[in-house]
Amino acid sequence: MDFKESLKDYQNIVNSQLQKYVRKEECPENVLNDSMEYSLMAGGKRLRPILALATYKLFKNDYEKVMPYAVALEMVHNFSLIHDDLPGIDNDDFRHGKPTNHKKFNEATAILAGDGLLNGAFIVISEDLKNSDSQDLPNKLQVFNEFTNAIDRMIAGEYVDTEYEGKTITNELLEYIHKNKTGAFLKYSVRMGAILADASETEIENLTKYAENIGLAFQIKDDILSEEGDEAVLGKPVGNDKEMGKCTYVSKYGLQGAKDILDKITNEAIEIVKEFDNSEFLQELALYIKNRNK
Amino acid sequence: MDFKESLKDYQNIVNSQLQKYVRKEECPENVLNDSMEYSLMAGGKRLRPILALATYKLFKNDYEKVMPYAVALEMVHNFSLIHDDLPGIDNDDFRHGKPTNHKKFNEATAILAGDGLLNGAFIVISEDLKNSDSQDLPNKLQVFNEFTNAIDRMIAGEYVDTEYEGKTITNELLEYIHKNKTGAFLKYSVRMGAILADASETEIENLTKYAENIGLAFQIKDDILSEEGDEAVLGKPVGNDKEMGKCTYVSKYGLQGAKDILDKITNEAIEIVKEFDNSEFLQELALYIKNRNK
Repeated sequence: MDFKESLKDYQNIVNSQLQKYVRKEECPENVLNDSMEYSLMAGGKRLRPILALATYKLFKNDYEKVMPYAVALEMVHNFSLIHDDLPGIDNDDFRHGKPTNHKKFNEATAILAGDGLLNGAFIVISEDLKNSDSQDLPNKLQVFNEFTNAIDRMIAGEYVDTEYEGKTITNELLEYIHKNKTGAFLKYSVRMGAILADASETEIENLTKYAENIGLAFQIKDDILSEEGDEAVLGKPVGNDKEMGKCTYVSKYGLQGAKDILDKITNEAIEIVKEFDNSEFLQELALYIKNRNK
Repeated sequence: MDFKESLKDYQNIVNSQLQKYVRKEECPENVLNDSMEYSLMAGGKRLRPILALATYKLFKNDYEKVMPYAVALEMVHNFSLIHDDLPGIDNDDFRHGKPTNHKKFNEATAILAGDGLLNGAFIVISEDLKNSDSQDLPNKLQVFNEFTNAIDRMIAGEYVDTEYEGKTITNELLEYIHKNKTGAFLKYSVRMGAILADASETEIENLTKYAENIGLAFQIKDDILSEEGDEAVLGKPVGNDKEMGKCTYVSKYGLQGAKDILDKITNEAIEIVKEFDNSEFLQELALYIKNRNK
């Protein structure tokens, strides 16, 4: 398996699926639809849907049952980016090297485009549920329920992150923010794939542990990149966290301390997922999260 | 039947149900939860859940199946109010005679509280679906799917309303805004009650027509109140629409023209719903929408 090629394949699958949900008919809300498409198709790693698809693929050969839920994941991820970037929250001008939604369009459009993408994820899920075979419903309804709870955690994490900006916080609160803001949703992405693929309780448990580790690794790596990344590669300014007095793993444990934790939890994740057949991609993905430069 | 008393009873039922979903545990996002509760419990007519409950009651004697969906309706209604009031959209300082969410808390909190209430509605629905008997699922999944589409219409209507503020618009576009921004959700409230109560196709169709009429009546009455209402009673400034160059039924058809249309469609709604046994409350509700002073 060539990891980079597999990753690209996955990204292409996700992008072509997302494109299907972009609305292009003539209607008075054309610009709103354009602004949703702008953010949805602006690039990004597609990490969440890829985690769902790759986990599902540990057990199944098709993507049939998981695809609508993977699309919904990416829609909600983009909803959260649009709202987090708003002047009233993080006030960011750039995302993926392009103007943020409210900079490209305007604030009202960005608020409503975020709302539209959050609700759009539930349109996709409700269509799928309505047309599902009844024997598939218990797993799908479990996944739908966990989805709403993961979004709830993401919103709570973003709130606490915003609220404590520039204030000194405890290690517990730092962990709370990471666990909720980013971790809950990454964990859910993996669980979704496993549950929809009819994995056993133990398998789901082990994959959840893998997901928790890479979720935390993802956040720690973000903190490291915000400190020492390359602005041109990242597509956003470096050193902002420090400037804004943000509490991060780097500010708490130092640059080397953060890197040591990152190494440890990445290795743990790889050990866990090694137990599964055909898990090379998920092993490499853990390394990719650790080694990425954007 | 004393209408005012029945209305009060319904409001009390809805308020006590909503109260159950207010989170009060100690957690880092306490203030976010407070801000969701602030808007959710700030008052308001509870028109949407009441429409759902009263329609359901045409056919059934309990509220069991409809209650979680009625609660979800009110949560989404409050999400839309919080976001519409934001500085980036309508920039309103007061709602139900109290400071709007972003005035009481701050903008970041208001954005995230709105997000939390929108997602909160889906938490409630997903919990209910997960615990449902399988024979109830087809109707409930139909209702869930229509819910997401009604929210989509509401967001689109709000977008177009905001985008065309201060511009001259066609009658078609004015109708589009009313139909989508307010109408779709009121129509859905009635349909939800009918579908969950196992009403027949024809019954659902007739009740949908009733709902379309009172939805339009609601909007026209809003336009009339914005022109000649009592600020102290309304809890918000009067004359704002004209000042901001908003296109309304009053600006399009004149005050008397708007009142004539309101009379006509209210009478039509009453004629339709009269065909159902025990529909006195829904008949009176149409008159209440026409005659209300806030």
